[in-house]
Amino acid sequence: MTPEEYNRHLESSIPLAHGMGIRLVESSRGHAEAEIPMAGNGNHVGTMYAGALFTVAELLGGAIAISTFDTSVYYPIVKDLAITFRRPAMTTVRARATLPADTIDDVINRADEAGKADFVLEAELTDDAGVVVATTRGTYQIRRHTDPPRR
Amino acid sequence: MTPEEYNRHLESSIPLAHGMGIRLVESSRGHAEAEIPMAGNGNHVGTMYAGALFTVAELLGGAIAISTFDTSVYYPIVKDLAITFRRPAMTTVRARATLPADTIDDVINRADEAGKADFVLEAELTDDAGVVVATTRGTYQIRRHTDPPRR
Repeated sequence: MTPEEYNRHLESSIPLAHGMGIRLVESSRGHAEAEIPMAGNGNHVGTMYAGALFTVAELLGGAIAISTFDTSVYYPIVKDLAITFRRPAMTTVRARATLPADTIDDVINRADEAGKADFVLEAELTDDAGVVVATTRGTYQIRRHTDPPRR
Repeated sequence: MTPEEYNRHLESSIPLAHGMGIRLVESSRGHAEAEIPMAGNGNHVGTMYAGALFTVAELLGGAIAISTFDTSVYYPIVKDLAITFRRPAMTTVRARATLPADTIDDVINRADEAGKADFVLEAELTDDAGVVVATTRGTYQIRRHTDPPRR
């Protein structure tokens, strides 16, 4: 899946995130980066709203799952996500996350055996000066399509 | 602050949240409830998107702070927030949070002394059948206006 394919799909799959101007900018096996513009996503004190920062980071779990696991068999859901706000964000923000190769192998083995497998993904969010504005830690799960959909 | 006053202000203070159709429905000292409609906030599998659930819960911290602390002296920020997704949400969702009276007193005492004070707020999110779809735990802070704004 290329970022362009993902971004074309986002408008219909998660209209809220599309409306925030979020776009995937890098995507490969075990890695994803997404950006969100400041415009439209601020609050009354001129910093990016917490929910916008949450969203640009949360999406990485699904994007990585699509690029990394067999989507004809599995689909991803998010089980929990914790975000820590470190500095105010006042520019475009980029979120980055990587799933190590050994973790990928482990997730595939567990999913093949049990029909589903959790994985933890940490993301770092930086502003256009490279300052870390937030960090996240999310638990995602891939599960077989035969299981009922969640989110 | 009445819910109506809060909701009128939300369009300019956090346009993203206003755009999601979120509205505060109950507000008193130490307590707040907000609702978010399903329309416009779903994803491709027909459940409410994670970032929408995050937002309706996150706002409660600021709403409670405004109703509970002296806003001529203090303003609230969110430091971190963890959300756990328990069931898919497919209807209007209501988020509820309460800050106990003894916690309020403690926060006021600490803020008067140090110029700022953290407080932890837990919220529960239910669908229109009363099923808990998500829970959150956030750390907020009130700080004197003389400190630089965060978010």
